[in-house]
Amino acid sequence: MASVAPDPLQDCQITGFARDLRAGKTTATAVTRAFLDRIEALDDRLGSFQHVAPEQALAAAQAIDGLVAAGTDLGPLMGVPVAVKDIYAVEGMPLTNGSLYDASHITGPEGPYVRRLRSAGCVILGKTRTVEFALGANGVNEARGTPWNPWDMQVHRAPGGSSSGSGVATAAGLCAFAIGSDTGGSVRIPACFNGIFGHKTTIGLYPTDGVFPLSPTLDTIGPLTRSARDAALVHTAMTGEPVPGPRPLAGMRLGLPTGYFSEDCEPEVAACMEAAVASLRAAGVEIVDVDIPDPSEREWMFPAICPPELLAALGENGFRQARPNMDPVTGARAEKGFEITGVQHAAAIRRHHELSAEADRAMEGLDAWIGPTCQFLPMAVADLADPAALARSFLASRNTQPSNLFRQCAVTTPIQQFGSHLPVGFQIMCRNGADAHALSLAMAIEAHFGPSGSPDLSML
Amino acid sequence: MASVAPDPLQDCQITGFARDLRAGKTTATAVTRAFLDRIEALDDRLGSFQHVAPEQALAAAQAIDGLVAAGTDLGPLMGVPVAVKDIYAVEGMPLTNGSLYDASHITGPEGPYVRRLRSAGCVILGKTRTVEFALGANGVNEARGTPWNPWDMQVHRAPGGSSSGSGVATAAGLCAFAIGSDTGGSVRIPACFNGIFGHKTTIGLYPTDGVFPLSPTLDTIGPLTRSARDAALVHTAMTGEPVPGPRPLAGMRLGLPTGYFSEDCEPEVAACMEAAVASLRAAGVEIVDVDIPDPSEREWMFPAICPPELLAALGENGFRQARPNMDPVTGARAEKGFEITGVQHAAAIRRHHELSAEADRAMEGLDAWIGPTCQFLPMAVADLADPAALARSFLASRNTQPSNLFRQCAVTTPIQQFGSHLPVGFQIMCRNGADAHALSLAMAIEAHFGPSGSPDLSML
Repeated sequence: MASVAPDPLQDCQITGFARDLRAGKTTATAVTRAFLDRIEALDDRLGSFQHVAPEQALAAAQAIDGLVAAGTDLGPLMGVPVAVKDIYAVEGMPLTNGSLYDASHITGPEGPYVRRLRSAGCVILGKTRTVEFALGANGVNEARGTPWNPWDMQVHRAPGGSSSGSGVATAAGLCAFAIGSDTGGSVRIPACFNGIFGHKTTIGLYPTDGVFPLSPTLDTIGPLTRSARDAALVHTAMTGEPVPGPRPLAGMRLGLPTGYFSEDCEPEVAACMEAAVASLRAAGVEIVDVDIPDPSEREWMFPAICPPELLAALGENGFRQARPNMDPVTGARAEKGFEITGVQHAAAIRRHHELSAEADRAMEGLDAWIGPTCQFLPMAVADLADPAALARSFLASRNTQPSNLFRQCAVTTPIQQFGSHLPVGFQIMCRNGADAHALSLAMAIEAHFGPSGSPDLSML
Repeated sequence: MASVAPDPLQDCQITGFARDLRAGKTTATAVTRAFLDRIEALDDRLGSFQHVAPEQALAAAQAIDGLVAAGTDLGPLMGVPVAVKDIYAVEGMPLTNGSLYDASHITGPEGPYVRRLRSAGCVILGKTRTVEFALGANGVNEARGTPWNPWDMQVHRAPGGSSSGSGVATAAGLCAFAIGSDTGGSVRIPACFNGIFGHKTTIGLYPTDGVFPLSPTLDTIGPLTRSARDAALVHTAMTGEPVPGPRPLAGMRLGLPTGYFSEDCEPEVAACMEAAVASLRAAGVEIVDVDIPDPSEREWMFPAICPPELLAALGENGFRQARPNMDPVTGARAEKGFEITGVQHAAAIRRHHELSAEADRAMEGLDAWIGPTCQFLPMAVADLADPAALARSFLASRNTQPSNLFRQCAVTTPIQQFGSHLPVGFQIMCRNGADAHALSLAMAIEAHFGPSGSPDLSML
């Protein structure tokens, strides 16, 4: 580890970097070079990047430093190095969509979100690995490779998906933050499994042009960050909407959905969750039981929505061409979409909107619902050869899909510090459009929970 | 006709009524009573109303008059009597959705559009007949009755659909204006066939809660009015968005799509359209040929979108219960939705959004596209017993569906005054969100075209 540059944002996060940049204590070029060094030193083992773009990144960083010197301020993300999930088109970089099949014509050219990252001053380091076509929760991709969860360098554990590389790269300090996408949990699951913060935005907050369309009905863009505070900065920079400061814990009212979210949790997850809830209660947060629409409707709705929409995007011919070289699990799941009828697809979308209204009613009088983000700790990838373990790994999205179905926004913040050797996530679910509110709650809760620790990469 | 009250808005339309109301020359009660008298005298024959609500209407009118006397001004629709298509829930009135099957639980309670009509001061006279579940262009409904097109009191001609009663009631002077809905032409076709103005709004301009969901993907709310000027008033009152005054003809640039819209037109339609275009050219309008995305994609897209969405709303059990008593043509068309796959449904929605972007590009540099609203004159209902004539009658939506697929807004204004004994419509199609612009163009074009005449009801 002696030869590896230290994570330049380890102690300061984006806020501190922004302050130091303007104070002349650092430069965009310096942090970009440090992240590129770390990627070179560590990512052979971690495999979080599909593509690294050192020359483009350094050129962009130098241009940003020139702007800083000229007195131009692009805002809080100026000079911040970011990694982008490889289902986003980024001009000048290759695009795999996590597949060996070239579906770049479906993703289309660089879209408004990436353009906005650039105009906010972000430096794009490269593209992060993803589950193929973003369809899959455990993070495994046999076609393009499965990143290594940095919390266990002995055993290859699942990074969570589908934004697997974005989770790993952020947790391992290979970027300031990373962009993912969340259709059924694909931001929150890798954030949870990698012990970092993740924000699944409200459907429609950002247009998804230039992002591979797994499901136009449910797709959302979202960042994976080192903290709620960083995610709030990203939110403000990308939307223009200010995020209120941390909301005081006293007076906060959170709903604990009865049943479902806390069922069948691994002991470490249950213990961390209970301790976190007790700690919030002790700090004056009111936590009440709440009845919510049945989240298990996800079991018929997701297969009725996502696979047909993925197949429609690829086209039947495209899918037939892609299928032989696809990750076998993702390929089989997608193929099931041919069995869905038009009435089932339409009925699922219809139910999605009904559930959204029902969820809004169940949220009345509450700031948010809470629950464990995932029921279990990151499992060993080798164990997934066992069909039962593989089936259980699909349940990584069991607790995240409800927010997608309910058209909510949601965040996950780490709580492994309450007693787990591997990451555990605390999910905060808020109503449609309440993204700034969710981040405000999360900042207060995160500050109360205290440091969650980082993976130990010293042996690399 | 001696005993029938004259149409109180025949000479003044909504603008004139609004002025007279405020000048104390008329009252909401007087016009409401006049329309109720006309409905009683004429609608046994015309059959445009499914339900008339005289007591509620008069009570509302009297309350409005009380507000006028008290100096309260609710805006341009204050005291204006309106008829509402019977797929809208209106509190205190029955709801049939044009069916003998009770699907009122699917339509749900009164929605924001009707509530807004009320708060704008409209007096709701009753509910107008509709094609069953709003699925059908010729206006025929064997389950609940087919209104009589007032332009020919000898032969029962098709009123156009699906907002059949709204078209007939407005044309016959049984209301100031009427509300319809347009998924594939259901505002514009009856407006065209009844010689009046119709406005298909941009998807999403108004939430469709409380309106039977034929297709949540394509459904829009829209008014059928006596003039573009009335429609502009409605637009401003309902959205708060001002409509610019009539746009000067000199400098206006309209695209005439090459092929398609003008193909296979009946001679009277072709003649009126040619004369109207020549008249606009002579007035300084620049009319240019334009290539547009292929509108004939409607042939696969509509059956892939609407029937599955209708069946999803009714539920398979609901449809099975409704089917035996449904209009046989509508029932058969809906049933076809069971043959559509989920991938086809998703692919059609995907293509819908692609076409929207392509249409926007084809609109660049143009104020609008124009073309005949329908290719033919209202056909005799008796002729539809012939399968070939019936099949041709479905083509009533051939020229209207493209705007729905392209996510455009569109209006139709009558042009039978250029040489037809039966109504002909001139369609103006504008890009997504350009509703006020479309109305501004239409006001200028309508003023230039001059009076289009009214149906002769003297024999009734």
